[in-house]
Amino acid sequence: MTSAPALVPRPLARARPLVEPALREAVDRLHPWLARIVGYSFGWCAADGSPSATPGGKGIRCALALLAAEAAGGAARDAVPAAVAVELVHGFSLVHDDIMDGDELRRSRPTVWKAYGTGPAVLAGDAMLTVAMATAARTGSRAALGELVGALDWLVRGQAEDLAFESRAFTGPDAVTVEEYLAMASGKTGALLGCAAAMGAALAGARGEAVTAYRDFGRHLGVAFQAIDDVLSVFGDPHRTGKPAGGDLTSGKKTLPVLEALAASTPASSRLARLLLERPLAEGQLTEAALLIDRAGGRRRTEAWAHIHHQRALHALHSAAPLPCPKADLTEVAAHLLHRTA
Amino acid sequence: MTSAPALVPRPLARARPLVEPALREAVDRLHPWLARIVGYSFGWCAADGSPSATPGGKGIRCALALLAAEAAGGAARDAVPAAVAVELVHGFSLVHDDIMDGDELRRSRPTVWKAYGTGPAVLAGDAMLTVAMATAARTGSRAALGELVGALDWLVRGQAEDLAFESRAFTGPDAVTVEEYLAMASGKTGALLGCAAAMGAALAGARGEAVTAYRDFGRHLGVAFQAIDDVLSVFGDPHRTGKPAGGDLTSGKKTLPVLEALAASTPASSRLARLLLERPLAEGQLTEAALLIDRAGGRRRTEAWAHIHHQRALHALHSAAPLPCPKADLTEVAAHLLHRTA
Repeated sequence: MTSAPALVPRPLARARPLVEPALREAVDRLHPWLARIVGYSFGWCAADGSPSATPGGKGIRCALALLAAEAAGGAARDAVPAAVAVELVHGFSLVHDDIMDGDELRRSRPTVWKAYGTGPAVLAGDAMLTVAMATAARTGSRAALGELVGALDWLVRGQAEDLAFESRAFTGPDAVTVEEYLAMASGKTGALLGCAAAMGAALAGARGEAVTAYRDFGRHLGVAFQAIDDVLSVFGDPHRTGKPAGGDLTSGKKTLPVLEALAASTPASSRLARLLLERPLAEGQLTEAALLIDRAGGRRRTEAWAHIHHQRALHALHSAAPLPCPKADLTEVAAHLLHRTA
Repeated sequence: MTSAPALVPRPLARARPLVEPALREAVDRLHPWLARIVGYSFGWCAADGSPSATPGGKGIRCALALLAAEAAGGAARDAVPAAVAVELVHGFSLVHDDIMDGDELRRSRPTVWKAYGTGPAVLAGDAMLTVAMATAARTGSRAALGELVGALDWLVRGQAEDLAFESRAFTGPDAVTVEEYLAMASGKTGALLGCAAAMGAALAGARGEAVTAYRDFGRHLGVAFQAIDDVLSVFGDPHRTGKPAGGDLTSGKKTLPVLEALAASTPASSRLARLLLERPLAEGQLTEAALLIDRAGGRRRTEAWAHIHHQRALHALHSAAPLPCPKADLTEVAAHLLHRTA
């Protein structure tokens, strides 16, 4: 892989300020107690509600929605309800997934359930999902609403697969396959990125075929994104990712680098398989596991999957016949996601 | 109060068989693992997935949707998507509320989080909510979808209030007032009953004013229902309710009989206030608390609230100008809810 661009690309930096006022307005209409919890999850405030400048997410979904609207010949503002809805669904999925996975840290801060308790975290996630649906319903666009509803179906299915993987084996006849993993990632991560682009295009008046192409663009980008996420979860710098080093390895999560390393049937694969039986791994074992994953080709092959889905995304984008400037911006965002380090 | 009718009224018994095939079809489209958990929550199977004849809920929301459609001049089948959506939202709220409240028993069986774990219960609830939204979106009726989205907003707000009550006092300046309680119940319970009736009417082609009247009918019925639920949680027979005796009292939940008893400022009120400081209550103390609530008029005044909201519901129903036969059925269902013992 080439080295990472140092800065957040302009199209990403531009999207958030356009969306955040509407997002804050939607959150402010919630019960005050829930508005605070949701605000914390978005990095707008500390757990006690005092203002905070914690950087939020990357705003990828916002940018995809706005740029797809422009690419389809509309204005960025057409897609603001799509961006708000998708950011809220993304926030909902993070808050609930952290409960399911028992993760205690996100973006270097306690996760919502850790900060407020499981019950309030469940309800805050429910509230985010509810507001997202209300936002989509208010657009009056059946196509946009259909995209959100369809994406939620895939998102939940992907999360179910991911949880079901936990009780499956790393090796042997019951082992999770790379294909199953990619299908899961297409749901868990691809669905919402696809939804962002498709909803944005639909709200800008794009026709059915173009909307489908934007959806495919986002879906493939999502799989590429998830593959890179998995690489970072094993090899990333915890100071940059905001998550503990090797967290996914410690918890025995089936991530793509591990599955690819095990499937490679190299001596390093066999040593990795034996090591994974000793979970939870101690710190020294984490380093060894990462080394074995790398040696068995797990990292390289995962990056290759990211590359393949990146190419498929660009192909889908091209077939949507986007306007040139927003197409360049979408291409830049896609490249950024592929080469990111956090 | 008059004594309870012994049997489930015909309009209630009739609704479920009309709705259940569509509900099962919607659930069957979920990830198989989630379909099993959701099936368990509806009483269709045991925790291991084996078929079971556990009685499910009362099917009140189904009946309201179907009868409102008939009352508005449509057919019961017009409202099946409304009934499916509302049953799913009801199921979602039970599964998530049981996590938030830490309740371990519902309908005499382990709650979903107790049977499958918190993570799977969170996801199963999310799946139910998602399918509900998809069902409403597929009707293509903006009015019906708007009712569901609006009801979810109130439902979440009501649940937030209910959770916030937990950290409030029973007495003194910070005490939860009866008015606050009724507003919470209107959201937590009224919103979805109102939604059932309004969605059913909307799908049958009712006009805006009539839809609003059906919504008001369901909302008030919901408050009456919740008041009776609170009475049963203190004075009901656990063999009939399927919940542990005095569960709400033990956990220090602010229910209407307690709030009314405390607000009455009788000697029994003061003794009750002192007793509630000693939570968690032992079994003997539970009996004493129930006696004090009764003596301070908490039971009687809660039943009076149920009666008032029952009357308001009938008034709203009348103003919707329903057809005579379904009106009689809706009236019978309302009476059943007021006089039930489980």
